Amino acid sequence: MQNHLVAALDIGGTKIAGALVDGAGRILVRAQRPTPAQEDGDTVMRAVGQVLGELTASPLWARAEAVGIGSAGPVDASLGTVSPVNIPGWRGYPLVERVRQLTGRLPVELIGDGVAITAAEHWQGAAQGYDNALCMVVSTGVGGGLVLGGKLHPGPTGNAGHIGHISVDLDGDPCPCGARGCVERIASGPNIARRALDGGWQPGADRDTSAAAVAAAARAGHPVALASFERAAQALAASIAATATLVEIEIAVIGGGVAKAGDVLFTPLRRALRDYATLSFVQNLTVTPAMTGTDAGLVGAAAAALGSGARVGAGASA
Amino acid sequence: MQNHLVAALDIGGTKIAGALVDGAGRILVRAQRPTPAQEDGDTVMRAVGQVLGELTASPLWARAEAVGIGSAGPVDASLGTVSPVNIPGWRGYPLVERVRQLTGRLPVELIGDGVAITAAEHWQGAAQGYDNALCMVVSTGVGGGLVLGGKLHPGPTGNAGHIGHISVDLDGDPCPCGARGCVERIASGPNIARRALDGGWQPGADRDTSAAAVAAAARAGHPVALASFERAAQALAASIAATATLVEIEIAVIGGGVAKAGDVLFTPLRRALRDYATLSFVQNLTVTPAMTGTDAGLVGAAAAALGSGARVGAGASA
Repeated sequence: MQNHLVAALDIGGTKIAGALVDGAGRILVRAQRPTPAQEDGDTVMRAVGQVLGELTASPLWARAEAVGIGSAGPVDASLGTVSPVNIPGWRGYPLVERVRQLTGRLPVELIGDGVAITAAEHWQGAAQGYDNALCMVVSTGVGGGLVLGGKLHPGPTGNAGHIGHISVDLDGDPCPCGARGCVERIASGPNIARRALDGGWQPGADRDTSAAAVAAAARAGHPVALASFERAAQALAASIAATATLVEIEIAVIGGGVAKAGDVLFTPLRRALRDYATLSFVQNLTVTPAMTGTDAGLVGAAAAALGSGARVGAGASA
Repeated sequence: MQNHLVAALDIGGTKIAGALVDGAGRILVRAQRPTPAQEDGDTVMRAVGQVLGELTASPLWARAEAVGIGSAGPVDASLGTVSPVNIPGWRGYPLVERVRQLTGRLPVELIGDGVAITAAEHWQGAAQGYDNALCMVVSTGVGGGLVLGGKLHPGPTGNAGHIGHISVDLDGDPCPCGARGCVERIASGPNIARRALDGGWQPGADRDTSAAAVAAAARAGHPVALASFERAAQALAASIAATATLVEIEIAVIGGGVAKAGDVLFTPLRRALRDYATLSFVQNLTVTPAMTGTDAGLVGAAAAALGSGARVGAGASA
């Protein structure tokens, strides 16, 4: 595996990152551009082309066996298209075909960004060694992915694990997705901050109204700040318990900015999990912070490429 | 496949059924005993032994390649034990080992009853031809199982698909399982009836207060009866949408006594599903009644046996 080499793309609303990654998960070459998210689709694709151009210019490129793409969703892996919420110029955009035009013979694997981060955590992070895992990102939004039976479970369209948009409060607040009481509507950073402000919490002199500022207030014992994190923890616990009850997972890994709150989040989360994960086969579920960092999207895209194209490629050339 | 033959056991709180089933899913020999559910564990096991005794007495028994067991849960397929809620004499009961003592050389496959019914619907019923499906039983309780990537997904302990005990109302009514707002607490037959009675619905001269009687009242236009089914439909829709959003399924199949209500359940269910299944990759989800009947548990247990032991056995002897 160490001698394998794949290209990875991590496409989000803010930046487009690319890398050449070896079979041990080491990033050997990097490239990055800001995402021109408000421009037309071709302009966004040109930025992807510039990132790929830097990678193909590397002398290592000749050894690349596959391309893995982790993209903001929704994606459609069966059609090879993406429609990222934050990139309006791309709707049903044929990203796989366009990347293929720039990378020639190589197989291209497309997955959603939540699935990519899950692949990274399973390969190198806190989910390593677990055959059944849920990995979540709790940040501006709430996303995730699943490992089932030892393998990544992207689902037919590459979107499985979208835990932020399951409803845990069927009569709850409307969510921008159209449903009610979604996990994201309760537990995302902006919603933690909104609930604290609504409850009467006031930011300090720096006027910082982020979830991180609410977390700091909670650590200082502010009851409204604590209550907002506890409500987020309750929604996360209900969703994690639901996932475990549905598919049997042994561990839930939580990353993203909100997870940096540490005990302010994890203590009430582990407590609430005892309330919702009640059946015998889900009672031993572990909840733990993510270990991979800002490169998780790239590492996960590489893992997906190694899991499909590269291994097939290696088999064929062996 | 047609020439294969397996033994199947369907173990519930009311009856213990057994059969010899061929590779086409035909039941060739049957046996059945009432479950002595309130007796001690050995007495329950003797009833299983009597059912198996009738099967082993058949001249066809010599051709049996494996034993499949679908049991009321929770089960633990990894340990081979069962702890059915309605059979208190069996707690961590080593059912697989005991069955093996009675059936000799044959491989024994254990799955939960929801998983068994899912196997039956995937083999012969409404989920046939679908690679990603949720099958539910809505009855005295609410259970289910999953087909993912074309294969049954029992999970490591054989309990995956326990959709009745995911919470769709995190502040909702306490459920006997210990959690709150579980699907079963809202959508099971007894809870549909309870809600109708609480709302002022009164049974007819026959004093029938079953969910079927509430369904008849709903068909006749009784607003409280209609509202009770609509609330059940809403909870089922939220849970089905959650499952689709988590693992990507193409179809949800619903069987059990409550599903016999027909349009009284399915019309509001399909409407509510549009409210909760909002993301692009779950919008085309089909919801349909189950096709298999009272033999589903036996047929599903046979499918599990054919899927593991029997196929392995066939391969070894080929």
